[in-house]
Amino acid sequence: MTISPLVDQTIAAIGPLDAAAVAAAEARQGVLTKPPGSLGRLESLSIQLAGILGQPIPQITGKAVIVVAGDHGVAAEGVSAFPAEVTPQMVFNFVAGGAAINALARHAGANITVIDAGVGYGAANIARGPAMSREDAVRCLEIGINAANEQADAGANLIAGGDMGIGNTTPSAAITAAVTGADVASVTGRGTGVDDAGLEAKIATIRRALEVNQPDGSDGMDVLTKVGGFEIGVLAGVMLGAAARNCAVVVDGFISGAAALIAWRLCPDIAQRYIAAHRSVEPGHNVGLQAMGLSPLLDMEMRLGEGTGAALAMPIVEAAAKCLAEMATFTEAGVSDGDD
Amino acid sequence: MTISPLVDQTIAAIGPLDAAAVAAAEARQGVLTKPPGSLGRLESLSIQLAGILGQPIPQITGKAVIVVAGDHGVAAEGVSAFPAEVTPQMVFNFVAGGAAINALARHAGANITVIDAGVGYGAANIARGPAMSREDAVRCLEIGINAANEQADAGANLIAGGDMGIGNTTPSAAITAAVTGADVASVTGRGTGVDDAGLEAKIATIRRALEVNQPDGSDGMDVLTKVGGFEIGVLAGVMLGAAARNCAVVVDGFISGAAALIAWRLCPDIAQRYIAAHRSVEPGHNVGLQAMGLSPLLDMEMRLGEGTGAALAMPIVEAAAKCLAEMATFTEAGVSDGDD
Repeated sequence: MTISPLVDQTIAAIGPLDAAAVAAAEARQGVLTKPPGSLGRLESLSIQLAGILGQPIPQITGKAVIVVAGDHGVAAEGVSAFPAEVTPQMVFNFVAGGAAINALARHAGANITVIDAGVGYGAANIARGPAMSREDAVRCLEIGINAANEQADAGANLIAGGDMGIGNTTPSAAITAAVTGADVASVTGRGTGVDDAGLEAKIATIRRALEVNQPDGSDGMDVLTKVGGFEIGVLAGVMLGAAARNCAVVVDGFISGAAALIAWRLCPDIAQRYIAAHRSVEPGHNVGLQAMGLSPLLDMEMRLGEGTGAALAMPIVEAAAKCLAEMATFTEAGVSDGDD
Repeated sequence: MTISPLVDQTIAAIGPLDAAAVAAAEARQGVLTKPPGSLGRLESLSIQLAGILGQPIPQITGKAVIVVAGDHGVAAEGVSAFPAEVTPQMVFNFVAGGAAINALARHAGANITVIDAGVGYGAANIARGPAMSREDAVRCLEIGINAANEQADAGANLIAGGDMGIGNTTPSAAITAAVTGADVASVTGRGTGVDDAGLEAKIATIRRALEVNQPDGSDGMDVLTKVGGFEIGVLAGVMLGAAARNCAVVVDGFISGAAALIAWRLCPDIAQRYIAAHRSVEPGHNVGLQAMGLSPLLDMEMRLGEGTGAALAMPIVEAAAKCLAEMATFTEAGVSDGDD
């Protein structure tokens, strides 16, 4: 497959985890002052981080949330409870620092970047044809890769994407159905809050989008081009770019999960570098995560997007690294282990 | 009921949540720039915090983890995979800063205090008689209340207890069975890691403790005295003391959950001031939480105690408060709400 020199080279740079670092972290977890396994997922997370960062004792050196906003022609089908004008309004809110992601990223100590990926001039209506041209899809991936590289250059090694785009649970459901093969009804939720009739209409719209476009679920580029969205493409690029730089990718909710599915189809090895932040209320999110073998850290009944779940999970990820780094061993502390 | 002047006065100071603060926080959540409800449990948590702290926009001013260590005569029955000498060894590790709770409390920005509640000279073997005298039980509660008061005086309003005590999942299971009426087998787990035969023996030991002592599950003092432990009594006191000072009580895992059950029997209103941090691998923990109507924030497959789950949840609790405080309203941000 050839997408573009930058995308091809980025994908080629994503390999399996660093096995030596994984083994060293695993061994160290076994001699820290606690019953083996008693820190549960903090232990497995620290070992995964070791493998991703290529460090026996991984250190989080910087955190970044890249929020990507884009509009969707399919919003004209009435799939959202909010009007499309909210997308640019929320971009101003992000820049002014008043959105949930601002509060949560500040709390996590994460840098925020906001990218306009077709606010106003959005993706085409997927219920009537493809979302975008192949050129636009390539450009989305490249913008995301460059944004991730900028954050990695600035010292971040824990990177999340976040989304904003009225109507974007609709392409996300279409992507999730196309990639996983799940039935549309099982991956479609209420988004920002449509009622029962709205939900039925939304499901019908998504079915139409899949019928009209016939995306090949095994081909990430085909899925993005036909039933994706600009911010979703940029988010997939962010994930590829971050993974290629040996950064851990914190996957937010349903829209980021759809982007993660596209990046995974482009590069199956990337899933080992994903950390699923939370289980969204959107039913399709869990379907996508399961397809990639991911289990979310948090189950907070959230469904906002913006990277909020990812920012909330960042302190947990850091905590995992710190336990591995800072705890004493049985020998160091003079504590008897369970074999005495 | 009269326990002691300090304990009685502490319990009397714990009332229902501040209804006006709850209503104000709820109203504010409805006008912040997000679809209503989309922050899920972060929203309900912020509203609960408002009611606990008595502030329409609650502010976490300080965090504290009070780690309480004690030994258990029942450890002589072979209920633990670790020898009892580990309790004092781990106390040294806490003081030296090398335990998991040290790493996690530092990460959360929480102050740590360590209390010796019968290390070495522990509670009596509950399989043969009561754990302690009524005088000792009262003293445990008072030590805990005083410790919580010290932290509240120093500015903490988010307070957790943590436990250390080889053998202490055994009294915790006995307490949980006595208070909730659940069958012993359903609330008994492997603790630090006993094997199948060890688990069977542990269940038999707990059944014997309940038969020998016949605790009255509706009476917190009776349960503590007969099948409790010194650190568990101090932890119950910490929770009562923190709640009486309008602090939020972050409940850690199974042992803290057992202490929370005792404090709840002494003062049913306290449960509204509990925030369940995580779901421990110990099966009895969930039984206890359900009895109190609590649902844990995290499910990280942890089973270490020490307050580790509580410290890990503290950043989540703070995040909830910060979203409520720092997010812009629809009007402030010039964002259209869903009714437009």
